Amino acid sequence: MEYYRAPLQDQMFALRTFKYQERVASLEKYQDYDIETMQALLESSADVLTKETMPLNKIGDKEGVKWDPETYEVTTATGFKEAYQTLVDNGMMSITGPLEYGGGGAPETFGSLISEIATATNKSFTMCSGLTRGLIEALVAHATEEQKQEYLPKLITGEWSGTMCLTEPQCGTDLGLITTKAEPQEDGSYKLTGTKIWITYGEHDMTSNIIHLVLARLPDAPEGIKGISTFVVPKFIDGERNQVYCSGLEHKMGIHASPTCVIELEGATGYLFGEPNKGMRSMFTMMNVARLHVGFEGIALSEISYQTALAFAKDRKQSRALDSSKSDPNAPADNILVHADVRRMLLNIKATNEGMRALATFVSIEHDVSVYHPDEKVREEAEDMVALLTPIVKAFFSERGFLNISEAMQVCGGAGYTADWNIEQYLRDERIAMIYEGTNHIQGLDLVGRKLPMHGGRLMQNFANRVTTLIRENKEDENMAPFIGPLKNASKVLTGVTMELAGQAMEDREVAGAVATNYLRLFGLVAIGFALTHQARYALDNPSPQSSTKLKTVKWYMDVILPEMDSLVKVIAASKSNMFEFDVEEF
Amino acid sequence: MEYYRAPLQDQMFALRTFKYQERVASLEKYQDYDIETMQALLESSADVLTKETMPLNKIGDKEGVKWDPETYEVTTATGFKEAYQTLVDNGMMSITGPLEYGGGGAPETFGSLISEIATATNKSFTMCSGLTRGLIEALVAHATEEQKQEYLPKLITGEWSGTMCLTEPQCGTDLGLITTKAEPQEDGSYKLTGTKIWITYGEHDMTSNIIHLVLARLPDAPEGIKGISTFVVPKFIDGERNQVYCSGLEHKMGIHASPTCVIELEGATGYLFGEPNKGMRSMFTMMNVARLHVGFEGIALSEISYQTALAFAKDRKQSRALDSSKSDPNAPADNILVHADVRRMLLNIKATNEGMRALATFVSIEHDVSVYHPDEKVREEAEDMVALLTPIVKAFFSERGFLNISEAMQVCGGAGYTADWNIEQYLRDERIAMIYEGTNHIQGLDLVGRKLPMHGGRLMQNFANRVTTLIRENKEDENMAPFIGPLKNASKVLTGVTMELAGQAMEDREVAGAVATNYLRLFGLVAIGFALTHQARYALDNPSPQSSTKLKTVKWYMDVILPEMDSLVKVIAASKSNMFEFDVEEF
Repeated sequence: MEYYRAPLQDQMFALRTFKYQERVASLEKYQDYDIETMQALLESSADVLTKETMPLNKIGDKEGVKWDPETYEVTTATGFKEAYQTLVDNGMMSITGPLEYGGGGAPETFGSLISEIATATNKSFTMCSGLTRGLIEALVAHATEEQKQEYLPKLITGEWSGTMCLTEPQCGTDLGLITTKAEPQEDGSYKLTGTKIWITYGEHDMTSNIIHLVLARLPDAPEGIKGISTFVVPKFIDGERNQVYCSGLEHKMGIHASPTCVIELEGATGYLFGEPNKGMRSMFTMMNVARLHVGFEGIALSEISYQTALAFAKDRKQSRALDSSKSDPNAPADNILVHADVRRMLLNIKATNEGMRALATFVSIEHDVSVYHPDEKVREEAEDMVALLTPIVKAFFSERGFLNISEAMQVCGGAGYTADWNIEQYLRDERIAMIYEGTNHIQGLDLVGRKLPMHGGRLMQNFANRVTTLIRENKEDENMAPFIGPLKNASKVLTGVTMELAGQAMEDREVAGAVATNYLRLFGLVAIGFALTHQARYALDNPSPQSSTKLKTVKWYMDVILPEMDSLVKVIAASKSNMFEFDVEEF
Repeated sequence: MEYYRAPLQDQMFALRTFKYQERVASLEKYQDYDIETMQALLESSADVLTKETMPLNKIGDKEGVKWDPETYEVTTATGFKEAYQTLVDNGMMSITGPLEYGGGGAPETFGSLISEIATATNKSFTMCSGLTRGLIEALVAHATEEQKQEYLPKLITGEWSGTMCLTEPQCGTDLGLITTKAEPQEDGSYKLTGTKIWITYGEHDMTSNIIHLVLARLPDAPEGIKGISTFVVPKFIDGERNQVYCSGLEHKMGIHASPTCVIELEGATGYLFGEPNKGMRSMFTMMNVARLHVGFEGIALSEISYQTALAFAKDRKQSRALDSSKSDPNAPADNILVHADVRRMLLNIKATNEGMRALATFVSIEHDVSVYHPDEKVREEAEDMVALLTPIVKAFFSERGFLNISEAMQVCGGAGYTADWNIEQYLRDERIAMIYEGTNHIQGLDLVGRKLPMHGGRLMQNFANRVTTLIRENKEDENMAPFIGPLKNASKVLTGVTMELAGQAMEDREVAGAVATNYLRLFGLVAIGFALTHQARYALDNPSPQSSTKLKTVKWYMDVILPEMDSLVKVIAASKSNMFEFDVEEF
């Protein structure tokens, strides 16, 4: 039994808080997507997803996917192929695709918000189009016009799907170790040979063709990360089967319905796109959006788990209220929502969910501004925000999502541990998000090692300026005091830790590695505090029942969640402590 | 592939730290169990478990258990029945059973330490004998001599197994809502009618009989918790099948090989034991040990996950050391143990595992002292420690175990998410421990609402005295300064929070509910710090390579784990915040 209503109200609240209409819908590119259109489109898309893909979520978990060792073909779970076709027929897949190649041209902000709903209704199913969108983005940025004409239209409708073939058995995080070879052929194509692992939807039966994006080395490539090139390797070329096969599937904790393939390239025909040896650049251009979407996965499964736990809590009667005035004398026990600990757990989930949604919506809007705003300076500032906050959205949200789902399970007690309430599936499905698209520590290193020093610290300065502006504009308003006080303190602490860290990291690079994960957590708490303070401002300016609840929720965040900072600050100060005094055999 | 060596060295270190020889082996009752005998017994038992039950762990997870709707019988996974018989034949099941009824009479300390190893090798398998031990304890404490003679010998050898039938569909935490009826019969027996759920090993094929402990109401019983009586309901009575059946199994996230049964009592014959309407008392006597064992489950699966992640880390080469002097120029990448974040994760797990093991060993030893020491005053003090720390061991360890396993998975990256490395199973198997045997919040309430005020605050005072003594005895020793400093501060903070809380809770009972979970976490961090400081003292007094590593590990705990306190203190200070300002429809 699924308990889910797409959180459209809160999504609209976030769009309004961060001025979607003024910032995005006013761009020439997005004039057809005003905020009312967004709402209508989110509503109708949510309807389709809830009806078509949600009922398949549990079936997919139970059945998984099947690999045939004779044909190397993969069959998806019952109903997946048909649901996929329904979404293609409805035009659902193409809404965010570029107009020039048949897409709907909707802003990325729409893509992000709908990805939350799609993941909540069926994460395994949604991953297929998620990968395809990544490939579309890479092709738009780096392929020749001829290549674009060949691949984009069918990828955009969803008739074909895409993959990302990066990882190999000996390399995940460290892609410099890639050994897959690409031999040039006389016709300008290449023959690719190698083994790729963890390939999501590397083989399946939902589309008539699969286009693999493959990282490989040219014969004369330099060693390491600077010798990687990018190729498209279609499963079928002009109807002929290419030499790219699925040789097996991983057996995973979750996302059972999403095939995770070992892909063998056995002299497969591929086509170089982008510049030779600059393949990592193609990867980086699509990473921001992909990582943003992983963040939305955390919100998605945390939200559906929250709604499930809330449905359980509203129904369950157990024990008596400690405050007897809240007791129901006519029932044998009180509803568990009278118990402080149940409220504590639910509010922790609710406040972080809404905070994460606010922050990720802010970043999505900034993304659209960063690409299409006419003013270069505005674009640059927006790009700074996206670059700085994307690793936080990916890592903090995937971790918090996982923890929130576990907390939602706790609300349900023993029932939460059974398959009857689905939360156990959400927990299993979410756990991988802390690992893929760059492990959470890699996000921390990206934040500390790349984003902080980038442009002489400009990104962080831009963020600090926005926080300072928010504080300055609101410091006289008494109603904002419960939010401005904690935010001001948090921001000061973050600035101090950042300065300290910058100094230490220059002297000892290992310090950055030792503290990156916790520094990102600290930054995440502050960034969410920043986003929620914006929402409090909006709530005060626009009174409504929703605004009134929002103000309580932000207060809870400031009182109960933001203080997690204190421990992180101490642990960051402990730096490497004695970690390198342990010999290998002492572990 | 399992990577596990029973942590005998660290267990022996804990036994020595807390003076097992002087405190337990010196008791008349346990004179046959000196510390060398303990070591030999742990070693030989670990050998058997590693050989017999560990290979079945993954098979059990995959196959699960089967229920036959025609016969209501349950079949366990391949090999389980045979392995169980092997352990019975080896006498493994009876080591801790009371001597008078054919057991080996080993101390509970042995039972606790071996339960860690047994759970690590196969949690689902081990739960059967765990439940049986609970029943044995309840019978020893409350049954008539005739009843003891009838049931104990075969329960102790393991020929029969036991269950605990407490929960019903409408009541888990709140057992006062039990409705199962017991009608007295002319022959002195009772006919029991009702439905029990979550019954672990309620039906299975590993033993020739199953003895159910059932909570039910007599016809004239008062309402609520004061009208519960305790019955034994055997599956077979003199070879005749009793009217107690398994009507279905739960489908759970983990512990697939452990049958979780719905048990229907359809006028089943049962025998009252203990006093009428005082059944909850029988429950409480066995709860301490059962909860202690749940704590050991957390250590167990965290330990095997740690060893697995370490094996992965020692093998995996990826990226370059940030400190180039640690780089291996002859390899394409460095072993991941050069990376600070990998060390950070592993040390966090290692330090808390060893800390939890130290604390739980301390409590186990105190338990044995509390039961059999000739001096009443010593017994009382030991009992205080057990009563105070047991909820902490149960709740803190089950939660930390879960988080540690997730961290171990993170060390392994994508591989950790697959079934190949087993960690994903350990994570699923461990999650229930935060829920069963009283949810973790119930442990918090037990700590705050019962244990703190008990005997006018004597339990907490006794604990504080032990901490103070440890600090006083070591404050002049410079080598102890890195441990005594943080412990002293932590203890002061805990005392302050406790006083504050005691005052608040008297004015407003809801405060206790709001802060109990976080207060328990705070206490857990301090209690582990206390146990580890003892270990540091022992390490300094007994130099060895193991002692040298231990000192580093304790230092890590003090620097990096103990500071988690700071945030908890703030969140506890926030108390109820605005949690009760949210109307039900605002969630």
